[in-house]
Amino acid sequence: MAKAVISLEDAVKKSPRKWVYLFTEGNAKMRDLLGGKGSGVAEMTNAGLPVPMGFTITTEACNEYYRDGKSFPKGMWQQTLAALHIVEEQMNKKLGDKENPLLVSVRSGAKFSMPGMMDTVLNLGLNDESVQGLIAQSGDERFAYDAYRRFVQMFSKIVLDVDPKLFEEQLDKAREKAHVKTDAELSADTLKELVGTFKKISQKASGVVFPSEPQEQLQKAIEAVFSSWNNDRAIAYRNAQKIPHDLGTAVNVQSMVFGNMGWDSGTGVAFTRDPNIGDKEIYAEYLPNAQGEDVVAGIRTPLKIESLKKEMPQVYEQFVQIARRMETHYRDMQDLEFTVEKGRLFMLQTRSGKRTAAAAVKIAVDMAQEGLITKEEAVMRVEPNHVIQLLMPQFDPAAKKQAVTDGRYLAKGLNASPGASYGKAIFDADTAAEVGKTQKVVLVRPETSPDDVHGMLTSTGILTARGGATSHAAVVARGFGLPCVAGCEAIRVDEEAKTLTVIATGEVLREYDDISIDGTTGEVFKGIISVKDANYEDQADLQVILSWADDIRRMQVWANADNPHDAEKAAFFGAQGIGLCRTEHMFFDPARLPIVQKMILSDTVEERQKALDELLPFQREDFIGLFKAMRNPKTGEAFPVVIRLLDPPLHEFLPKYEELLVEITRMEDTDKNNPELPAKKHMLAAVEHMREMNPMLGLRGCRLGLTFPEINVMQTNAILQAAIAVEAEGIHAKPKIMIPLVGHVNELAEVKRQLQNAADAVVASSGKTIEYKFGTMIELPRAAITAGQIAEVAEFFSFGTNDLTQTTFGFSRDDAEGKFLLRYVDGLPKLDAHGGNVLDANGKPETVKIFKTNPFQSIDREGVGYLVDLACKQGRAVKSDLELGVCGEHGGDPDSIMFFETTGLNYVSCSPFRVPVARLSAAQATIVANQKTAEKDK
Amino acid sequence: MAKAVISLEDAVKKSPRKWVYLFTEGNAKMRDLLGGKGSGVAEMTNAGLPVPMGFTITTEACNEYYRDGKSFPKGMWQQTLAALHIVEEQMNKKLGDKENPLLVSVRSGAKFSMPGMMDTVLNLGLNDESVQGLIAQSGDERFAYDAYRRFVQMFSKIVLDVDPKLFEEQLDKAREKAHVKTDAELSADTLKELVGTFKKISQKASGVVFPSEPQEQLQKAIEAVFSSWNNDRAIAYRNAQKIPHDLGTAVNVQSMVFGNMGWDSGTGVAFTRDPNIGDKEIYAEYLPNAQGEDVVAGIRTPLKIESLKKEMPQVYEQFVQIARRMETHYRDMQDLEFTVEKGRLFMLQTRSGKRTAAAAVKIAVDMAQEGLITKEEAVMRVEPNHVIQLLMPQFDPAAKKQAVTDGRYLAKGLNASPGASYGKAIFDADTAAEVGKTQKVVLVRPETSPDDVHGMLTSTGILTARGGATSHAAVVARGFGLPCVAGCEAIRVDEEAKTLTVIATGEVLREYDDISIDGTTGEVFKGIISVKDANYEDQADLQVILSWADDIRRMQVWANADNPHDAEKAAFFGAQGIGLCRTEHMFFDPARLPIVQKMILSDTVEERQKALDELLPFQREDFIGLFKAMRNPKTGEAFPVVIRLLDPPLHEFLPKYEELLVEITRMEDTDKNNPELPAKKHMLAAVEHMREMNPMLGLRGCRLGLTFPEINVMQTNAILQAAIAVEAEGIHAKPKIMIPLVGHVNELAEVKRQLQNAADAVVASSGKTIEYKFGTMIELPRAAITAGQIAEVAEFFSFGTNDLTQTTFGFSRDDAEGKFLLRYVDGLPKLDAHGGNVLDANGKPETVKIFKTNPFQSIDREGVGYLVDLACKQGRAVKSDLELGVCGEHGGDPDSIMFFETTGLNYVSCSPFRVPVARLSAAQATIVANQKTAEKDK
Repeated sequence: MAKAVISLEDAVKKSPRKWVYLFTEGNAKMRDLLGGKGSGVAEMTNAGLPVPMGFTITTEACNEYYRDGKSFPKGMWQQTLAALHIVEEQMNKKLGDKENPLLVSVRSGAKFSMPGMMDTVLNLGLNDESVQGLIAQSGDERFAYDAYRRFVQMFSKIVLDVDPKLFEEQLDKAREKAHVKTDAELSADTLKELVGTFKKISQKASGVVFPSEPQEQLQKAIEAVFSSWNNDRAIAYRNAQKIPHDLGTAVNVQSMVFGNMGWDSGTGVAFTRDPNIGDKEIYAEYLPNAQGEDVVAGIRTPLKIESLKKEMPQVYEQFVQIARRMETHYRDMQDLEFTVEKGRLFMLQTRSGKRTAAAAVKIAVDMAQEGLITKEEAVMRVEPNHVIQLLMPQFDPAAKKQAVTDGRYLAKGLNASPGASYGKAIFDADTAAEVGKTQKVVLVRPETSPDDVHGMLTSTGILTARGGATSHAAVVARGFGLPCVAGCEAIRVDEEAKTLTVIATGEVLREYDDISIDGTTGEVFKGIISVKDANYEDQADLQVILSWADDIRRMQVWANADNPHDAEKAAFFGAQGIGLCRTEHMFFDPARLPIVQKMILSDTVEERQKALDELLPFQREDFIGLFKAMRNPKTGEAFPVVIRLLDPPLHEFLPKYEELLVEITRMEDTDKNNPELPAKKHMLAAVEHMREMNPMLGLRGCRLGLTFPEINVMQTNAILQAAIAVEAEGIHAKPKIMIPLVGHVNELAEVKRQLQNAADAVVASSGKTIEYKFGTMIELPRAAITAGQIAEVAEFFSFGTNDLTQTTFGFSRDDAEGKFLLRYVDGLPKLDAHGGNVLDANGKPETVKIFKTNPFQSIDREGVGYLVDLACKQGRAVKSDLELGVCGEHGGDPDSIMFFETTGLNYVSCSPFRVPVARLSAAQATIVANQKTAEKDK
Repeated sequence: MAKAVISLEDAVKKSPRKWVYLFTEGNAKMRDLLGGKGSGVAEMTNAGLPVPMGFTITTEACNEYYRDGKSFPKGMWQQTLAALHIVEEQMNKKLGDKENPLLVSVRSGAKFSMPGMMDTVLNLGLNDESVQGLIAQSGDERFAYDAYRRFVQMFSKIVLDVDPKLFEEQLDKAREKAHVKTDAELSADTLKELVGTFKKISQKASGVVFPSEPQEQLQKAIEAVFSSWNNDRAIAYRNAQKIPHDLGTAVNVQSMVFGNMGWDSGTGVAFTRDPNIGDKEIYAEYLPNAQGEDVVAGIRTPLKIESLKKEMPQVYEQFVQIARRMETHYRDMQDLEFTVEKGRLFMLQTRSGKRTAAAAVKIAVDMAQEGLITKEEAVMRVEPNHVIQLLMPQFDPAAKKQAVTDGRYLAKGLNASPGASYGKAIFDADTAAEVGKTQKVVLVRPETSPDDVHGMLTSTGILTARGGATSHAAVVARGFGLPCVAGCEAIRVDEEAKTLTVIATGEVLREYDDISIDGTTGEVFKGIISVKDANYEDQADLQVILSWADDIRRMQVWANADNPHDAEKAAFFGAQGIGLCRTEHMFFDPARLPIVQKMILSDTVEERQKALDELLPFQREDFIGLFKAMRNPKTGEAFPVVIRLLDPPLHEFLPKYEELLVEITRMEDTDKNNPELPAKKHMLAAVEHMREMNPMLGLRGCRLGLTFPEINVMQTNAILQAAIAVEAEGIHAKPKIMIPLVGHVNELAEVKRQLQNAADAVVASSGKTIEYKFGTMIELPRAAITAGQIAEVAEFFSFGTNDLTQTTFGFSRDDAEGKFLLRYVDGLPKLDAHGGNVLDANGKPETVKIFKTNPFQSIDREGVGYLVDLACKQGRAVKSDLELGVCGEHGGDPDSIMFFETTGLNYVSCSPFRVPVARLSAAQATIVANQKTAEKDK
C-alpha cells in the first residue's frame, strides 16, 4: 500500500471525479450523492455539532465500481487515503497506531433507508499492535480484547462471508468452560484467546488469512459494502419497495469514539424538551465511563444529567448549547445521542424525538409561539391520533404507577383502539350483555366475531388474544369508540373454562375478576386502575392547535347527529353544521314504534295518513330540538342542518320474520286457541310480503318515497313546521332536506317536485321566510356517474361513502367484514399448487394481502374515490356553486379527509366525537394541498 | 284582391326571395325549406306520380312573417296567386268557379313531424256559388253541402278560433229533429240549412262575417297556419321534443280530388307486395264512387283491384305501372293511397308498408336478390322482433280461421311475449305448478308477482288482465320464452271464484276450461287452437338473411349454455362459442347435491377435499360433453368455451333456514325424541352460520375461491382433464377459465396464481398441449373503474351486465322488479301537494315515468354503459388484443347489442334461443356503426 499521502484536493485533481467527501463538505441536500446517512451526518457536522470525524464515498463511486467490473474507480482509493489522513489529523489518532490508534466504522448508506441491507463493520483498525494502544488509552484490557474479538467476528461475517454460527459456538464453549452465563463475564485472557481462535476459524472458512494491515481492512470493507448493494436480500427489498436498482449505495467511514475510556468519559441520551409532557427543559440521562450499549442493556442505572454538570461543567455547558442549537437548526424537538471521550464531547446522532400526544400538542403550540415554527407547521406536527388519544379516558397516572409497583402488570398487546378502562373480566358476549347492564365489564375473547357485537356494546373495553389492528374486535371497537387491546399473544384465553392465563408466568384470571386495559398503549393489568375522563375544556393547548387548524382549513367540519343531545355535543366540539340527521332513528323510539308499525301495516292510504298525522308532532319536536342545538356557540347564529328523509326498508320496523315464525309454529303446536294467534299470523303475512332477499338493494331511500309519498310529505311538513316554530324564537334555521339513494335524476326530480309543493304550502301559510334546500345523497355508482344530470335538480350533494363503498365493491359491510374482508386486509395464507402453505425464508407461512386497508375505514381512492371525484367534477360543471359534502364514516378519517380536500368538497361530516380530529385533518389537508400547488407553480 | 295574375317567375323577380314552390319544383332534400310534407309530396310529383297539383309556401316565409310583425313578406302573396293560377290551369278548374270549381286543402308542414299541431283546412274555395259547381260536377247535392258545412266548421275553428262545440250542438239538434243517429243520414236540405246556421254562429262567436271570397279564405288560412307555429301546444311540443323554435312551418296548398264524382270515380289502397306472406304481386282494394273515408269506415265492402281492371283498364294499367315505379323509386314495398276522379288517377300518398315477420324476411331477401337493395339494406329491413316471432310457435292458420268462424274469439290484450299456445285455464300458481306437470296449462291471473313464478314456469302461456309490456308477467314470460298476453282489460279475472269473464259479452270461462292465446297478436280464444312449432330448418329466407348478417357483422355471437344439450342447441342456432357456462347449475343435480352439501358442511380441509374428489369425475364428464358439443357444425373445429368457476354463496346449496327452523320447532314441540333432531339441529347451526343479510353482496364469486381455494382447484382440474380427454378424440378444446366477481386486481391475481399452478401441473403430466386462458367477469363497478389494472392479469373480460346493473343502480333484481322497478317503467301516479292525483286534460290521472325502459332488458347506456365503455377503453389501453365479451342477458337484446358494437366488444353471448336475433342485431349494429364512421369521414 502507498505510504506517501497526497492532499485530498490533489487526489481529486488526479481523478476523473470527486469520489470522496469529508463530512464537512456535504449537507442534507446531497442525499442522491452521499446517501441518507452520509448527507445527514454532514448536515450535523455543518450545523456545528462535534461529530466524530469521517468521510463518505459517493453512490457514483459505487455505480462506477459496477461499471468497471467490480473494481474501484480511478483515483477513489487515493481520495480515500487522503480523507483518512485528514481524519487522523483532526482526531489526533492514527489508524493502526500502537499508542494512539484510530478505529473507524464502515457503513453502507443508500438514498433510501434499506433496513436489513445495511452492513456495518465496527472497530476497524484493530490488530495485535493497535489493540495495545487501545488498552493503554482505556486502561481496560478486557474492553480492548472484547472490541477486538467483535471486530474479527463482524469483519469475517460481512467481508469474508464466514458463517457467524462458527463464532457463536466458540463463545458458547468459552462460557461453559468459564462457568459463566454471559459474554460480559468472560475475562480479558479468555477474550484474547478467542481473538486468536476466531482468526483461525476465519481463515479456515474463508481460505484467506485474516488481514492485520488496517488499510487492507479498510479497502476490503469498502468493497464488501459496494457488493452488498446487489446481494439477494437488497434486490428483493428494492423490488418490493419499488426502489430503482441503479441508485447505488454510499460508504461512510467514521472514527469511533468510546465513552468507557475512564471517568472523564461517558455516554448519554437526551431530549431537548420533555417528551412526556412537552415542557421546555432538557430531559436527559448520563452514564459515566460507559458505552451506549450499557445504557440500552440496563445493566447500570443511568444518572440524571446533573451528574455531568457537576463532574464536567464545561462539557455540560457545551452540550446544553448544542442541544439548543440543534432544536433551532432542525426546528423540532430533538432526540440526541452523545459520548464523552476523555473530556471531549461527541454527538453521535440527532433526530426528531418521539413524544406523547400531550407533549406533541404542547411542543407544537410552544414552538409556534416562540416563533420557531409557523402555525401551519405546528398543525402538521400534531398527528390525528394524538387528538383521538387526548379525548379518550386515560388511566390516572398515580394509580397506574402503583399498579406497576404492586406487580399487577400482566401483558402487552396491540393498541387497537385508544382509551383506558377497567371492569369485570367476562368471557362470552351473552354474559357481557347481561352483566354489562349493571356493572363495568371488559369482554375477554380469543377473538371476536359479528355474533359478539351485542356483548361488545355493553362492555367498557375489549381484550382479544388473536387478531391484528384490522381484526373484527379492533374495527368494531374503534367504530364505537371503545378501548381495545387486540392480538395480546402473551395471554391464552380459554372460552370453556372462562379463564385468562398469562403464558410467561402462568398467572390466571377468572370470570368476574377485575381487569384494566389501556387501548392507547396495549397494556393489560390485573385489578382496577382508576380512569380519568379526558376533558376537552381543560386542554388549552389542544384548543389552540384546533383554533389554528380552523383558521387554516378550507373545508368545513360538520357532524352526523340524530338528536338534540348529539347536536349539542357536535357544536361543543366545534362542528359547523349537521351533515346528516338520520330520521329513522327517531322512529325506533319505543313511544313511536307502535305508531310506525300501524302506519306500515295500513291497508289504505287513509289509515296510513292517520298514523302519519300521529307521528308528525313527534318529528316536529325532534327537529325543533335539533335546530335549537345547532347554533354557533359564539354568535348564536343557526348552522345548517341536513335532514335525510326516511331511508331504511320499512320491514326493519317490524318484528323479525324468523322469530314470528317460531312463535306461531309453537303456538299452533301447543297453544292453538291463543287469542293472539290470528294477529300474529296477520303480522307474519305482512312481514313475509315485505321481506327482501337483499334488503340493502331493495325498497328503501327515495324508492320508498316514490312508493309511499305521504311519509316524505309528513317529514317535510314536520321539518318546515319546526323551522317556523323556532323562527318565532329568533332562530333562522337552515334546513336542507336530503333525498337518499337516488340512482336516476328522474327519481330526485319527482320526489323534489312533490315535496317542494308541500313545503311551499307550509311556508306560505305561515307568512314567514324559511331558507330551505333540496339535495341528495350520492351513494350509488350510477348517481356518481350521472352526477351532471342530478346536479340540474339537486341544490347540494352529500356523498354517502358507506353505501357507495358497498355498491362499488359489491359487498355488504354486514356480510363482508365477518366473512372475508378482514382476512383480505390481514392477509390470506399463500397456497401452493397442492393446497399447502407456501413458507417464507424463516419457515413461516407466507400471506397475501388483498387490500392494504379496510375500505370502510379509509376511502378506496382508486375505485370509490374515482366516483367521488367524477361526481364532484360533473356536478360543479353544471352548477359551479353546488354544495358538496361527505357524511359517510370516511368523513372522520384523516387519510380520507386528505383525499376529500383534493376533490374540492365544502365540508366533511362525522360523528360528534370525531369533529376535533376532522378539524385538524382538514387543516393538514389544506396545507398539503397548498404545498402541492406551490410546487406545481414552481 | 288583385285580379291581374302575373307569372310565378315574374312574381319571384319582384320579391326579395322565392317564397313559393310548385310541387314540381321541390324534392325530398328540400326538407328544411319546404317541411316534411311539402318536400315529400314534391318528391312524389317528381317521381312521376300523378299527385293532385299544388304548391308550398316556405318555412322562410313563415319566419319572415314573424320578423315583419305578423305580415306576409314582400311578394309572397303575389307568388301564391301566381302558383294558384298554374294549379288552376293544370287542374282545369278555377277557385270559386260556379261551374268547375277548384277546391284546395291548406296544411301546415314543419321540418319535423309535429302531430297535434298540424292544422288543416279542407274544401277551401266553397261558397254559395262554387257549391253549385260541385253539385253539378258530382251530381250529388248532399255530398256538396256536406263538404260545404265541413269547410265552414273547420275554417271557423282553425282560422276564426270558434269553439267547435257550438257546431256539434247544432248537429246534435239536427239529428234529433230528423230522428236519425248519424250525420251521414242527414238530408241535403238539412245540410244546406246547417251551412247557413254555421255561418251565423261563426260570425257571432268571432265577430267577423264568414268570408265568401275564396282568395280571402286562402289568405286567412295561410295566416292561421303561420300563427299555429307559435300556439301553446306547438311550443310545449317542441320543448318536449327538443325541436328548435326558429325552424318555422311551411304551408301546403293542394287541390282536392274526389272519388265520389260518379261511377268513373273511386278510391283505393294498395301494397306493392303481399304484406302477409311477402309474395311479389300487387295487393289492393278498390271502391268505386267513394271517398277514402268510406273505405276506412267499413260501410261498404271494398272490391278486389280486378274490378278496376275491368271497368277502367287504362287507369288500372297506369296504376300498376306507378306501383312498380314507386317500389323502385323508394326501394321498398309501398303502401299506396289513390283516388280516381272522373277517370283521372291521382296518387294521394305512398309510404313504406307495414308487413308481417314472414313477409318482412321474404321481401328483404327477394329485393336483394332482385338487385333492388343491397344485402346490408336487406338485413336492416328485418326487425329483431321479426326473427323472434318466426322462431316462436304459431297457431295453425286454418284452425285459427275456424275458431273465428265458430265465434270462439274472446278478447284482445297486449302482445307481451310472442308465440301461441293453448291449455287448461288455471287461476293460481300453485295449481298451475301441480297440473302443469301432466297437462298443458295457461296461467290466468289478474296480474302476476314473484310468488307466481313457479306456476308460470310449468305453464305453456300466461294471460293477465292488468299490467303493461313491462309488467312482471310480461318480463318473466319474455325471459323464459313463454307466450304471454298481458293487460287484457276486456276480461275480468276473479281469483276467488276462479273465473274469467269477458266484460263485453258476459261470457265466462272456469278452471280447467280450454283456452288459447297468441302472444304475437294479443288475441285470446276459447277452446283449443292447434299450434305449429316454428321450424328453423324450414325457414329458408330467414336462414339467407342470417347468413348475410353473419357476413356483415363484426362481433361474434356466442351462447350461454350450462350443459351439452344447450350447447348443441346453441351450435344449431349458429353460436360461435360458449360465453358462459355456469358450473353451479351442475351442482344442483340431485345425484350430486348430497356430495356438495357434504363438501360444504366439512369441518376440515381433508373432509372437504374428500367430497371434492367425489365431485371431480362428474364435473369432468360435464365438460367433456360441453367440449364435444361446442364445435363448428361445418368444419368440426372446436369453438371457445368460457367456464365460470363456482359463483353463488354456498348456503344456496343447503336447505332453507326458515324451513329448517319450523321443522325443528315442530319436532321439539311434538316429537322430541325423533332421532333425526340432532342432525337437523346441526344443519340449522351450519345454515345459520352461513346465511347472509344480503347474499348478493356476500361470500360469493372469487371471494369464495379465496376462502376455499380447493373448490376452484377441483374445478380447474376437471376442466383441464376434460380438455385432455377430448384431445384424444382429436378435439382441440379451448377452455377459458373465468373468475367471477372480481373487484380488486389482487383478488384475480391470487386466484389466478393458485389455479395456474394447478392447471400447469395437470397439463404437464398429460404430455399434451392445451390452449387455455384465465379471465374475469367485469360485473362490479370497481372492476370496471380499475379495469386497466385488472387487464394486466386477465387474458379476457366478460361483462356480467346483470350484476353490473344491480350494483351500479344499487338494486337487486329479485327485490326491485316486484317492488318498484316495473312501476318506474310503467309510470307512477303524479301527485299534487295534498297527495291527490294530478289529472291530465282528459281527466285521467297523469303518470310520471322514472325509467324509459327496464335496465335489466336494455342496457342503461348512461350509467352501466358508461362503466362498460370505460372498462373496454382502459383494458384495451393496457392490452390491445384483450378479448372482450358480454354474457349478461343484454347480450341477446337488440338495443344493447347496438351499444356493445360501439364499445368494440369481440362478442355477445346470450341464451341459445336468442342466438339468431343476436346474429341479426350484431349485423345491424355493424352497418349503423359503418354509416356513422362514413358520415364522420365526410
